[in-house]
Amino acid sequence: MAYPIKGGAIIAGIGQTEFSKNSGRSELQLAAEASRAAILDAGLTPDQIDGMVTFTIDTNDELALSRNLGVTGLKWWSETPWGGAGANSTIQHAAAAVTSGAADAVLVYRAFNERSGRRFGQPNAPRDGTQRPVDPYYTFGLDTPAKTYALWYQRYMHEYGVKNEDFGRYTVVARKHAATNPAAWFYQRPITLDDHQASRWIVEPILRKLDCCQESDGGVALVITRDERAADLPNPAVRLAGISEAHFSHGHVMYNYYWDDIAGFPEAKWAGDQVYEMTGVGADDIDVLMIYENFSPVVFLQLEAFGFCGRGEAKDFIADGNIELGGKIPLNTNGGLLGEAYIHGVNNVLEGTRQIRGTAANQVAGAEHVLCATGAGALILTPA
Amino acid sequence: MAYPIKGGAIIAGIGQTEFSKNSGRSELQLAAEASRAAILDAGLTPDQIDGMVTFTIDTNDELALSRNLGVTGLKWWSETPWGGAGANSTIQHAAAAVTSGAADAVLVYRAFNERSGRRFGQPNAPRDGTQRPVDPYYTFGLDTPAKTYALWYQRYMHEYGVKNEDFGRYTVVARKHAATNPAAWFYQRPITLDDHQASRWIVEPILRKLDCCQESDGGVALVITRDERAADLPNPAVRLAGISEAHFSHGHVMYNYYWDDIAGFPEAKWAGDQVYEMTGVGADDIDVLMIYENFSPVVFLQLEAFGFCGRGEAKDFIADGNIELGGKIPLNTNGGLLGEAYIHGVNNVLEGTRQIRGTAANQVAGAEHVLCATGAGALILTPA
Repeated sequence: MAYPIKGGAIIAGIGQTEFSKNSGRSELQLAAEASRAAILDAGLTPDQIDGMVTFTIDTNDELALSRNLGVTGLKWWSETPWGGAGANSTIQHAAAAVTSGAADAVLVYRAFNERSGRRFGQPNAPRDGTQRPVDPYYTFGLDTPAKTYALWYQRYMHEYGVKNEDFGRYTVVARKHAATNPAAWFYQRPITLDDHQASRWIVEPILRKLDCCQESDGGVALVITRDERAADLPNPAVRLAGISEAHFSHGHVMYNYYWDDIAGFPEAKWAGDQVYEMTGVGADDIDVLMIYENFSPVVFLQLEAFGFCGRGEAKDFIADGNIELGGKIPLNTNGGLLGEAYIHGVNNVLEGTRQIRGTAANQVAGAEHVLCATGAGALILTPA
Repeated sequence: MAYPIKGGAIIAGIGQTEFSKNSGRSELQLAAEASRAAILDAGLTPDQIDGMVTFTIDTNDELALSRNLGVTGLKWWSETPWGGAGANSTIQHAAAAVTSGAADAVLVYRAFNERSGRRFGQPNAPRDGTQRPVDPYYTFGLDTPAKTYALWYQRYMHEYGVKNEDFGRYTVVARKHAATNPAAWFYQRPITLDDHQASRWIVEPILRKLDCCQESDGGVALVITRDERAADLPNPAVRLAGISEAHFSHGHVMYNYYWDDIAGFPEAKWAGDQVYEMTGVGADDIDVLMIYENFSPVVFLQLEAFGFCGRGEAKDFIADGNIELGGKIPLNTNGGLLGEAYIHGVNNVLEGTRQIRGTAANQVAGAEHVLCATGAGALILTPA
């Protein structure tokens, strides 16, 4: 089966606001600022945008953003459900829109005051933001993402002898990368493993505070178009070489209690299998790896599912320095969602774009293949 | 610009529940029943479905529906914002998903208890069902769709000397078509113009009760796949020959107060221009016309915008019998949203499919081109 996104769609522009804990302005303002920056970065004007994609739980509707940006008409709009699992799904929609010819230039945006406004980490906030029935596990006391996800991670820890301090070794790397990324909230604020171990328990003995992603205010945006435009862009085009989504029955956002073996991540395995087959690229070819980490343990599960190490080996793989700048596979070079900001994972796609362009704060020299993984989705970026 | 949906995507199956005022069961049950029927109609099993599309305001999430249907894994999911303007937009998403190769067989579904549950016609219900800011016009007292839309229709009436009884002539035709469609709520219940004129005012002097679409309980679903499968299907495949969306800045769902001339419908004009250009089909080629009508006047505006008659001519065009079975362009042969049911307009796409298959209750002999118009979108169906 031909997959026309291979060779068809490119990231033409990226834009973002500052990342903070209190933006001091509306979510619409954040969306507009990031979107305008992305459109200008693509060398376009707002009236050349004819498609929009966002999350169902983004509060900025397409028509309000259009009015405020000066976008005159839309031929495509779509939204992705299910929160962070949708960080790549928005890109998939945009790629399908432009490769199918439904639109020429699609704006993907995600903006929120997720720290100063509605905090995802708090109990009793329906996480999907809609009128739909909330997570059934809430009634069993699992009323925050940390509690819900921790059950899954606990089995992984049990199965492979992983301790919380092992997770801490990822956080130390994420904060190290953030420390040299001026856009990161934790710029110039690295931590030690002792700092990690001194942070308070959120779900003992699984997650400490420093295992949890940030709650952040901010906005990010991208412009997706067809590769025939690549030569005309003011900045290097980045090819969407392959993109996959992988959602199994009984799953819920990124976790799925219904597998016989819950010490693995079959969704990520399927996402990886799809994208590797589409592109002919394998784990060994990846130069920079961006992993969506709402919590540090999910990095371990994804390193294994995407084939960077074997089952149960992530602990040693990380301890051996493989994921640092200069290591075998530099991971979350922006600091990730723990270190840079939690803009629902879409900020990781912007970092992947910068790595291919050669403009990242922590640039990996000669990066030609970036894998952006959301657990339930995978995206491979290459030069256009 | 190539538009690969032309020649690429087909409707392989359709399914629906009964349409009622009190389904007596959950919205999830309705979605599952309609979806299962569509999957079987396509000759598939649930585990062959690998994509899902619905409305943002559908309460049935993809994972819940997957579990209940036996769909094992999804490679695509997307949702369309903005209510009835999305009736075709869901089809556009599915077509882009299959023609881009992201998925093989996409289920589109829409199901609700819109009469026995949350009624769209009532005041104070945020119409888009999300946490987003509600319609700004609400604060000016325009707290129901009937009130909001009536301002637009009033200008049309003023400009072209149209009276409420002219709108009634459309309703009489819709009810006539419904009367011979066993699936219609108003099966065997035709009305006269006197009945229409005796129905109470909703917004005087613009809309009477019988100008308003029904509030309905029910579910509908379609399965979209690629045309290479057409020969293997148990039922005739229906080609998505062209599909367009058209949303201008300052618009809001289907109305837009910000045009200098508000006696027309520029969104519909743009949608039609796009789809006619894509397909090479013109208004004269259309055999059956399905028009989304939340209110009867919007039929007039769309007949004109899509080129079936000139500006201000819809009144006479309808009075002359052109839109009846046997007329120049049979319109809403299922009875439309006033006569059959209001399943958010998606039921009109099912009727278009039946007309191309040759299986409609009120079949138009030899129908080869059906236009499904949602005001802000247009879809042309042909035999595959």
